[in-house]
Amino acid sequence: MSDHTVAPVVPTPALEPPYYAVVFASVRTDRDPDGYTGSARRLSGLVRRIPGFLGEDFAHTPGGLAISVAYFGDLAGIEEWRRDPEHLAAKERGRERWYERYVIHIARVEHSHGFTRT
Amino acid sequence: MSDHTVAPVVPTPALEPPYYAVVFASVRTDRDPDGYTGSARRLSGLVRRIPGFLGEDFAHTPGGLAISVAYFGDLAGIEEWRRDPEHLAAKERGRERWYERYVIHIARVEHSHGFTRT
Repeated sequence: MSDHTVAPVVPTPALEPPYYAVVFASVRTDRDPDGYTGSARRLSGLVRRIPGFLGEDFAHTPGGLAISVAYFGDLAGIEEWRRDPEHLAAKERGRERWYERYVIHIARVEHSHGFTRT
Repeated sequence: MSDHTVAPVVPTPALEPPYYAVVFASVRTDRDPDGYTGSARRLSGLVRRIPGFLGEDFAHTPGGLAISVAYFGDLAGIEEWRRDPEHLAAKERGRERWYERYVIHIARVEHSHGFTRT
């Protein structure tokens, strides 16, 4: 989860493979939006302290799907984040209250490139 | 690119690894929105015909980042889609008109799981 209150307008740049991407696609309930927002903001700060964290992209179609993609240099960082006590507690609250459904894909990036208008 | 006019509310389900995810994070210009929408709709139909195409998730924060994640069973499908003439032409128009910037990450999914509220 990330700080969803301010949409980033610059995506995480193309990085040198290999690295890892954690895709989190979710649909929210309409319950406890303030609790969700506070938790997302807090976690967004915490994940940045994980060794190997490289960046995060987030987009949310109003009333529809949200997608976050977090990038890590290795699986050890992903595992450390997965076991973080605050993160674990937030995931449990998420399943209780905030998420209608979600899917997570953990993937090793093999190729990356970017375009920036000049 | 996908049919961005109707936001999906059910993400592509967790699949059996290995498979591939193509993450496309983009920021649009304000030029030619109708041309963009028509092209995105057309390509969304075409990509579904690629052998090994498994699904696509899309989210767009209004005025901010858009993220699409397309899933394929193998790299051959991604390569076929990359070389598709209509797709190539659309990408060229995208760089000319529609995109301020974008980043593509092609990644091999090693783990996947999902949650659905019961």
